[in-house]
Amino acid sequence: MEKVDIKSAAASLEALWSQQTVGEANGNLYKVAKGIGSTNWHKHDDEDEVFLVVKGRMTIQLRTGDVELSAGDLFIVPRGVEHCPRADEEVHLLLVGPSVTSTAEGGKPDWSYTA
Amino acid sequence: MEKVDIKSAAASLEALWSQQTVGEANGNLYKVAKGIGSTNWHKHDDEDEVFLVVKGRMTIQLRTGDVELSAGDLFIVPRGVEHCPRADEEVHLLLVGPSVTSTAEGGKPDWSYTA
Repeated sequence: MEKVDIKSAAASLEALWSQQTVGEANGNLYKVAKGIGSTNWHKHDDEDEVFLVVKGRMTIQLRTGDVELSAGDLFIVPRGVEHCPRADEEVHLLLVGPSVTSTAEGGKPDWSYTA
Repeated sequence: MEKVDIKSAAASLEALWSQQTVGEANGNLYKVAKGIGSTNWHKHDDEDEVFLVVKGRMTIQLRTGDVELSAGDLFIVPRGVEHCPRADEEVHLLLVGPSVTSTAEGGKPDWSYTA
């Protein structure tokens, strides 16, 4: 039982669009990530994905339109809903969900593996 | 699918130590709350309780010692662990867990019902 300074944990990450688990509770992982640029369009059939912006801004592109998020905003992408997160400047995030979704299938772009 | 400004949602609350649900994902409720003073000692046998401080400071008193949290800190109280949140000044929180725990059994103090 250690507290986690979310902003520092996210800031210390080097890889882009790569989730690092910082806690687990009630079947969900608490993960920090940083990103810039865009992931690929994708969806998660078996889990909702919770975004909480801790620094910066981002856009959750949906087929129904864009959702603009800034620090302190929470947004839930329901399971099965296609989305494509994009950040014009570096964004730091807390993500919550049952698994780590920063995979190719989960929209992680090819270029981010070598960033 | 609406975004939630966590800080504004918490700030708009009137009742103390009363959780208001702002979202649901993967079997968990996302809840905002504000508090000042102390709850009663309690535990949740069937759920972990996730605290994320969005404004102010608080202390999670545990039988093993105190944990001091400030804005941006995440802390998970595992199921079955006795705890007693306390805030010397008003604190605003995001809480995550399967149910609303701001009940007498969940440590909500008698005085807070009339605040």
